[in-house]
Amino acid sequence: MRKVYIVGVGQTPVREHWDRSVRDLAVESMLLAMDEADRGGVDAIFVGNALSGELTGQEQIAALVADFAGQTGTEAVRVEAAGASGGAAVRLGYLAVASGIHDTVLVTGVEKMSDLPGPLVGEALVTSTDEEYEAIHGLSLDALYALLMHRYMHDYDLERRDFGHFSVDAHRNAVNNPHAMYRRPISVDAFERAKLVADPISLLDSAPAADGAASVILCSEQAAGDESGSCAEIIGSALATDAVALHDRPNPLFLRAAHESAREAYARAGVGPEDIDIFELHDAFTILAALSLEACGFAEEGRGAHLAMEGEIALEGRIPISTMGGLKARGYPMGASGVYQIVELVQQLRGEAGANQVDARLGMAQSIGGTGGTAVTHILKSAQ
Amino acid sequence: MRKVYIVGVGQTPVREHWDRSVRDLAVESMLLAMDEADRGGVDAIFVGNALSGELTGQEQIAALVADFAGQTGTEAVRVEAAGASGGAAVRLGYLAVASGIHDTVLVTGVEKMSDLPGPLVGEALVTSTDEEYEAIHGLSLDALYALLMHRYMHDYDLERRDFGHFSVDAHRNAVNNPHAMYRRPISVDAFERAKLVADPISLLDSAPAADGAASVILCSEQAAGDESGSCAEIIGSALATDAVALHDRPNPLFLRAAHESAREAYARAGVGPEDIDIFELHDAFTILAALSLEACGFAEEGRGAHLAMEGEIALEGRIPISTMGGLKARGYPMGASGVYQIVELVQQLRGEAGANQVDARLGMAQSIGGTGGTAVTHILKSAQ
Repeated sequence: MRKVYIVGVGQTPVREHWDRSVRDLAVESMLLAMDEADRGGVDAIFVGNALSGELTGQEQIAALVADFAGQTGTEAVRVEAAGASGGAAVRLGYLAVASGIHDTVLVTGVEKMSDLPGPLVGEALVTSTDEEYEAIHGLSLDALYALLMHRYMHDYDLERRDFGHFSVDAHRNAVNNPHAMYRRPISVDAFERAKLVADPISLLDSAPAADGAASVILCSEQAAGDESGSCAEIIGSALATDAVALHDRPNPLFLRAAHESAREAYARAGVGPEDIDIFELHDAFTILAALSLEACGFAEEGRGAHLAMEGEIALEGRIPISTMGGLKARGYPMGASGVYQIVELVQQLRGEAGANQVDARLGMAQSIGGTGGTAVTHILKSAQ
Repeated sequence: MRKVYIVGVGQTPVREHWDRSVRDLAVESMLLAMDEADRGGVDAIFVGNALSGELTGQEQIAALVADFAGQTGTEAVRVEAAGASGGAAVRLGYLAVASGIHDTVLVTGVEKMSDLPGPLVGEALVTSTDEEYEAIHGLSLDALYALLMHRYMHDYDLERRDFGHFSVDAHRNAVNNPHAMYRRPISVDAFERAKLVADPISLLDSAPAADGAASVILCSEQAAGDESGSCAEIIGSALATDAVALHDRPNPLFLRAAHESAREAYARAGVGPEDIDIFELHDAFTILAALSLEACGFAEEGRGAHLAMEGEIALEGRIPISTMGGLKARGYPMGASGVYQIVELVQQLRGEAGANQVDARLGMAQSIGGTGGTAVTHILKSAQ
């Protein structure tokens, strides 16, 4: 397998972009990344997108955005794995370069969620669950995560307030990220007073549906040329799956796919959790942040929330997470978020994270679909 | 790049399966293929599916069917490229094995189209077009192909009846295929009398929306072991794209993506159209069959329909197409059809095509999305 470098990144602000289409957003991020990488053409394009068909009426989106980004004719496919779509696209792009099939690949994640009324967005989001065994009973994603959070609070004797530190941290970090959706700090008290969505999950536990697109250009060492010395390198990559329905898992509080994909990514990179300086995790809900930290070896079972309570996830803590705001405060354009994570890791590894800069040499990103049916993990190394 | 062999195939009958879910269909074909290949496990799963979100409310389908096929945890992603989704999944499976990333890969195509009322299926199908420039004006896929057929008939002085030979041939071949949806012959007169869908396209020009799933197991030479001598080998594979909107192409009657993907597949295989013994093409409409034959070098511009009129596409003709009924008569479960094509080619190359057996050493399959925005071409060689 060849070395794979990230030679350019691009992102649109995460917003409710009422005046932009899914195509506009994707293409803007693609051109930004190609411009930064100084590449006029690429060998292939992988587009991570979860719900463009349901939310914007547009399928076959990979060919569409390839054309509008000036890459008419290029091999281009869309990859879907619910919330992990962006991570899955990065994974396929990585494999295409690492294996020697392509030298230069463009990976784009995009989602446009604000064109439809809320109930229709909810109907689209629930397709990430098991339709015949979960959605059909009225179980939304929020409701499923509420079940997990209840169970976790019961098993480990925690209160709602204890999860607030995840959101406080994410919002604090988003203040300094011009691409973030919610650039305002919140307090643990505000967290506790927030309206419930599905008890015990409140608005401030949940990442907001949003519009946005992010892109990265992946290159082989040869194609990166002299630049490779100043680029982030992908040194670990893995995708694992699990039963989609929560009731089909032996221990619902153990994210098996997250654990397995992290385990394999660590093995490929030759590192362990103790070596990771920064972790962009999939904080679609605060409970998911806690469970991801445990699944990936940063905390013992039942201790994930304590990392947040003890300040260890802050920029100056042991394992900073959501350093640019995370899904919670940067915003969660579903299929795009896995690529936003990689873009933000590259900013950190290049030393371009501004006021949120962490002293980081190794960074990890994990993108999760549904309640953990799909998980993709990437480990990046600073080349500097 | 390593050699890639097909060591097992499986397919469900193509029907309106009112009593089966998208999951049931996929898993049945997966188990059939794994059983035939005598493989209990695979390294990765690629699922080609176009519209499961819109039509069945189920996304993240790759993890779902991996789990229910007994492959819980396995790397699994869904690939979408409208009607070319099945071909695109085969392409990614091929790359994963050829590049040395995985030794054994399962590729599944599945679509479940009969759960919703017709108008909602139509609404889902039109997502294959350019939503902002085509669908928004009320242009359905049928209407777009009607424009193409009108233009073709005008430019080359043809009548509706002249296209009938494509459908007559497909229906004749489907009679002997137990997996086909429409196992009854039709006449050119019946074709001419058929109800118009979008003038000049009639019901008998159009492939039917249907339910079905097909799977293939791809192996490296080493993983195929002694079996490789009795398996079909994939010797050419390519995916190309084009502008999704018809009006954005310099010559709408030239299928640029089909041409480019065939050209590259020929080059990789070291063969030309004159070497191909059988061609499973994407006959979603008769006009598309004619244009594909031209784009892939089997006929001059404007002469594709003549191949049908002159009997050259029949089993005993120069270039047999749709040998098990094609999309027209085997049926068109959208994202599954690209994998059905490969299954049928393997049947032919193994000499297991029964009454429809063609003396074939090299076969080609081409899967097309929308009006040609994506095209995937594979060339298979008999190992016998």
